[in-house]
Amino acid sequence: MRDAMYIPTLDDMLDARARITPHIHRTPVLTSRMLNELTGAELFFKCENLQKAGAFKARGASNAVFGLSDEQAARGVATHSSGNHGTCLSYAAGRRGIPCTVVMPRTAPQAKKDAVRGYGGRVVECEPSTSSREAVFAEVVAETGAEFVHPYNDWRVIAGQATCSAELIEQVEGLDAVVAPIGGGGMISGTCLTLANLAPGIRVYAAEPEQADDAARSFRAGHIIADDAPETVADGLKVPLKDLTWHFVKSHVADILTASETEIVEAMKLIWKRMKIVMEPSSAVPLATILKHPETFAGKRVGVIITGGNVDLDRLPWM
Amino acid sequence: MRDAMYIPTLDDMLDARARITPHIHRTPVLTSRMLNELTGAELFFKCENLQKAGAFKARGASNAVFGLSDEQAARGVATHSSGNHGTCLSYAAGRRGIPCTVVMPRTAPQAKKDAVRGYGGRVVECEPSTSSREAVFAEVVAETGAEFVHPYNDWRVIAGQATCSAELIEQVEGLDAVVAPIGGGGMISGTCLTLANLAPGIRVYAAEPEQADDAARSFRAGHIIADDAPETVADGLKVPLKDLTWHFVKSHVADILTASETEIVEAMKLIWKRMKIVMEPSSAVPLATILKHPETFAGKRVGVIITGGNVDLDRLPWM
Repeated sequence: MRDAMYIPTLDDMLDARARITPHIHRTPVLTSRMLNELTGAELFFKCENLQKAGAFKARGASNAVFGLSDEQAARGVATHSSGNHGTCLSYAAGRRGIPCTVVMPRTAPQAKKDAVRGYGGRVVECEPSTSSREAVFAEVVAETGAEFVHPYNDWRVIAGQATCSAELIEQVEGLDAVVAPIGGGGMISGTCLTLANLAPGIRVYAAEPEQADDAARSFRAGHIIADDAPETVADGLKVPLKDLTWHFVKSHVADILTASETEIVEAMKLIWKRMKIVMEPSSAVPLATILKHPETFAGKRVGVIITGGNVDLDRLPWM
Repeated sequence: MRDAMYIPTLDDMLDARARITPHIHRTPVLTSRMLNELTGAELFFKCENLQKAGAFKARGASNAVFGLSDEQAARGVATHSSGNHGTCLSYAAGRRGIPCTVVMPRTAPQAKKDAVRGYGGRVVECEPSTSSREAVFAEVVAETGAEFVHPYNDWRVIAGQATCSAELIEQVEGLDAVVAPIGGGGMISGTCLTLANLAPGIRVYAAEPEQADDAARSFRAGHIIADDAPETVADGLKVPLKDLTWHFVKSHVADILTASETEIVEAMKLIWKRMKIVMEPSSAVPLATILKHPETFAGKRVGVIITGGNVDLDRLPWM
């Protein structure tokens, strides 16, 4: 048993890849001539919106679930998340046929609760406060003995997310940079883990909403700064960095770029319109920052992680 | 020079394929476990929404444009279309570097005019009536000597569209059926041409909106019935069959199935939500008919043609 502060290695990524391959998609990489012309860069979009359960988090969740001993697996897994991690953990647990409990505020969107249940998971509601969430979660674990799988501050999850850029560098040769959104930092950490080991020449950029720029401020300050309930259309990116993800961010990220709410929504619409894919506002933040900082990316071959596609079609941000 | 009633053959499809390969995408085939469970069939979605210029019509238009002699090409091409054919002809002409004129009602959506111009084509406006369109179009041809490329009643166009199912049967083995939308019948005709020759065991179904069911009524009557200005959300499917497409429909289509407006919009939303792709209402008609006629497709391996992705994001049918 590794402790909570264990830093995952390249071997952990390779183990994760072998473990999760039967349970996830090798997602396609799409390109758009028009977006290349607009940015002056060559962009390669890694489409994790087409991933199982609609988000890259199926990778980390599958790695955590399928790495459990049979004994632990029998007691199931649990997490607190009102976003893609809860859905993806339920997906992975469903594949293994083990129980999954997701603690969610009772105010969370019905669609998110339905998504967890759709894969066989159980939703336990709490009040929309940190203290209620922690109390209810502790009860769930005490009652079930379930294994806690944190949305990102967990070496198994980071090693799973790291498989995404391992695929990307097999699919696209000669990348100069990769840009991914940053919220808690799970995807960025996995990207750093893989690229620092397998392709250290590729620069890793994190992309963040201006209105939730705690990671950018942490990066400049040299220590974690957590915002208190930031508001942004990119609702997957409101959570703060934690110890494990901060380790990767501070040691390997080239820069953290930000974009405004309007720029994020415009980039989202541009991708929908030109690339014909449905993706979340969070997934548009990388393109928004590339459009805002053309000098950083001009003439470069740039991987862009489209992190997820779970968006409420009745409440699109331009409606 | 072949006459207007020449019926294209398998050789014409093979010539088209060799000719257009550098100018089009081999589009991916996507699947969804959830949609398979919902329909009881195994569905394989051929994603022409990810085609160049956003629609399968890039195939037929490219075949027509790149098949022209240098002498004819120098005078350019022309068509009348307020839909994807105009955009795709402009795309193909742009690739060859020749002039393209598209006659459109002045009332056509600005986005459609912009799309033609975006690929370098010229838009000439007419009044929204058949007589005005014919008069203006005749003027354009008299003035330029441009070659008329009809949206579907043209053997070069049908041979181009036929390349789509040639790819599909290479990508998916053992299909039992293919379902494609039917408007003028260009895609269905190309599908019949290829499958009748290369995979005659695969049944071809056409899918049509109930509110624009002229093809279904023609099929039952045994002769072409043209509706006068039908209204449907599937705006790519309002046009009637013509001689060439009727030839293929009457000789090789297994059946023409219909779905209501509500069923089409629900199927569209289901595909957006579960498959994370942006596609037009017309492209949702096949899934709507499969959901409506489960007994026809249960247990079968079914190819579904997603014909295009050019939709106005500010005016989605569920807004």
